[in-house]
Amino acid sequence: MRFVDIIEKKRDGNALTTEEIQFFITNYTNGTIPDYQVSALLMAIYYQGMTSKECADLTSAMMYSGDTVDLSSINGIKVDKHSTGGVGDTTTLVLAPLVAALDIPVAKMSGRGLGHTGGTNDKFESIPGFKIELGKQDFINQVNEKGVAVIGQSGNLTPADKKLYSLRDVTATVNSIPLIASSIMSKKLAAGADAIVLDVKTGDGALMKNMADSEKLAHEMVNIGNQIGRRTMAIISDMSQPLGFAIGNALEVKEAIDTLKGHGPADLTELVLTLGSQMVVLANKAKTLDEAREKLQEVIKNGKAVEKFKTLIEAQGGDSSVVDNPEKLASAPYQIALPALKSGYVSRIIADQIGIAAMQLGAGRATKEDVIDPSVGIMLHKKVGDKVAEGEALLTIHANTDKIDAIKQKLYDNITISDNAIEPQLIYKVITE
Amino acid sequence: MRFVDIIEKKRDGNALTTEEIQFFITNYTNGTIPDYQVSALLMAIYYQGMTSKECADLTSAMMYSGDTVDLSSINGIKVDKHSTGGVGDTTTLVLAPLVAALDIPVAKMSGRGLGHTGGTNDKFESIPGFKIELGKQDFINQVNEKGVAVIGQSGNLTPADKKLYSLRDVTATVNSIPLIASSIMSKKLAAGADAIVLDVKTGDGALMKNMADSEKLAHEMVNIGNQIGRRTMAIISDMSQPLGFAIGNALEVKEAIDTLKGHGPADLTELVLTLGSQMVVLANKAKTLDEAREKLQEVIKNGKAVEKFKTLIEAQGGDSSVVDNPEKLASAPYQIALPALKSGYVSRIIADQIGIAAMQLGAGRATKEDVIDPSVGIMLHKKVGDKVAEGEALLTIHANTDKIDAIKQKLYDNITISDNAIEPQLIYKVITE
Repeated sequence: MRFVDIIEKKRDGNALTTEEIQFFITNYTNGTIPDYQVSALLMAIYYQGMTSKECADLTSAMMYSGDTVDLSSINGIKVDKHSTGGVGDTTTLVLAPLVAALDIPVAKMSGRGLGHTGGTNDKFESIPGFKIELGKQDFINQVNEKGVAVIGQSGNLTPADKKLYSLRDVTATVNSIPLIASSIMSKKLAAGADAIVLDVKTGDGALMKNMADSEKLAHEMVNIGNQIGRRTMAIISDMSQPLGFAIGNALEVKEAIDTLKGHGPADLTELVLTLGSQMVVLANKAKTLDEAREKLQEVIKNGKAVEKFKTLIEAQGGDSSVVDNPEKLASAPYQIALPALKSGYVSRIIADQIGIAAMQLGAGRATKEDVIDPSVGIMLHKKVGDKVAEGEALLTIHANTDKIDAIKQKLYDNITISDNAIEPQLIYKVITE
Repeated sequence: MRFVDIIEKKRDGNALTTEEIQFFITNYTNGTIPDYQVSALLMAIYYQGMTSKECADLTSAMMYSGDTVDLSSINGIKVDKHSTGGVGDTTTLVLAPLVAALDIPVAKMSGRGLGHTGGTNDKFESIPGFKIELGKQDFINQVNEKGVAVIGQSGNLTPADKKLYSLRDVTATVNSIPLIASSIMSKKLAAGADAIVLDVKTGDGALMKNMADSEKLAHEMVNIGNQIGRRTMAIISDMSQPLGFAIGNALEVKEAIDTLKGHGPADLTELVLTLGSQMVVLANKAKTLDEAREKLQEVIKNGKAVEKFKTLIEAQGGDSSVVDNPEKLASAPYQIALPALKSGYVSRIIADQIGIAAMQLGAGRATKEDVIDPSVGIMLHKKVGDKVAEGEALLTIHANTDKIDAIKQKLYDNITISDNAIEPQLIYKVITE
């Protein structure tokens, strides 16, 4: 097999065989096929796309290109959730204990934030003492004993995906739906889940800016999961404005606690219940999404969900008293309100720009080396559709300096107040097969 | 300027600026831009094409990426000819002395053969004593004194094109018309000609297999030349069957001598007159193509053309007596006729396969390291359209062994005899602007 023939085949719009894709990934991972040939293939894929079968083959080849996590010693169906990334997305913090409260084992591997997107690991680490770097066996033991554990990505998972991703980044081949879908799914599958729920974000703050692409990506990923034999569902949810009120690590932990107690923001609560219902159904703990939702609402109401959060925090060395006393979490020295410059209805809060503003406050990383300040961030008081009076606070900036004029300006530039009310949307689509 | 932005711009179908193309070629030649980014750009160009202006900019950038030949110390308009390569193509051997016989300075840089395509240098070197490797100054002096010189490519000409060509070869991006056009033209222009005549071959034996692509390539190259300020003309000629009767180095030299004496094969003679007329017009030695053709026919008739060939051979150390005594050229020990297996009309002689058969006899190189036997090759006796009787010789194989059964079979496989006569075509199009 010559790799140039594989490039030519894809260039001309033909589907690659399982063997050709396996040959590609094996020999690219071991360094036999050079980057300069692979980037030509990636560009050909950018134009020609891939069939569902090719996507599944590529995912499978990447998944097995390195270590895989074996969760088989954990009893029950392990359901993972993946979000394509957003601003103020606190769902994992809420979902992990919430689903675990229904005796569904949650073995969650999660990542750090970069750019305008926050990372679940950073959020957990803003809980005093919380350790995200667990040993593999400790991680599995904790799930078996406590029902839930969260771990930072470790080991040599999907090295093919890592190499491909770096190459795509410098060759203008990131925005290819088959490549995005197989990249995400290979990582999720290598992390060992039996079933997967996907939250595909759409809008300014998301990787996919429009509905058509978001739908394609969601369907592609559901196809891949199901073809590889892991039941997969997806939703498409809004990321044109940030999710919930909080953007910033400690602020989002507080918001997660509120949500687990039943008084979180409406949109975050709705999203968590929607995704959680799919997880419960995939774990065979409910027959319908409605039945699953009722069960989730019950454990919120009866306190089991928030108790499970305490259990999780304690098991990983954290101070679980923050759940009842959130003021123990890091708090920024400056809390500066941003007043509305006119009266009207909030019609737009551009998610990625608000995410960048939070990053500039210190809540996120511009480069991998940046250090995060857990206390800083933004608390929205108004969201799209809300009425606001001139002078009323749109949001509060939590900062470690009062020299934030540029950030204030950036926030003003990215929040629009109009004369007419707008009805925001949250969940556009639920894809169950 | 970031190269990834240039890739993205082309990926999305936008034209690159002169500065962007210059940035690309300069930094690729000096190694700053890596192969893996360039191959992604090449694949994007494969799909999106390039405007005429982009092609001219790319050609110009490649042309100046290394040394250029300065022919300004030669008086008169230096006209170069380039063929896109074929089988049995003896035109340069005939054209160089023929055009020079009209006092047009011919400073010809030419190459070696590879694969099924013969090389002009190898053909000249089959003349005993002929030296193709001249010093730069000797080359120019010879043109000034004798009116004609032929030199093998030397020096660091168009290093960008060499790097790009190697990369295209392994990334399935060879067959892109803008890339082919700018590659050819950058080499021709770096070789210093004031004006250029292009012979774009079409058919089985050619790089371009169909008329539409051949026309596109021809027009693209003529555009490039004229945009860069060198008058350029082109023709599109047939390469579905070999040109002339001879395929093989000494055999083609004999055929060139015949043609210069006025009794060469009809198709080769016609092609030489057509291309030669364009060269004469571009050199301002005739106002019309018809007038130019008459002048060329005159120097064939009065013997000046063949005399100029002797002058060229002597000037480069060769034995010019071969012109009057062609039997002095290398001759193969085995000359084996291939009889027709049935009567009818020759309807097809697949050029590239015949070229490969000649290569296998030793007339060409499968790899750059192979050594050529000047004596071997194929003499066609019948061409497309000719009537043939069963048992009559289709061709004679000139071999250095009699173990040629496989080659005989290959020749039979690639020559078709039909019941109906077919009218072969030679020149499809003449493009003068």
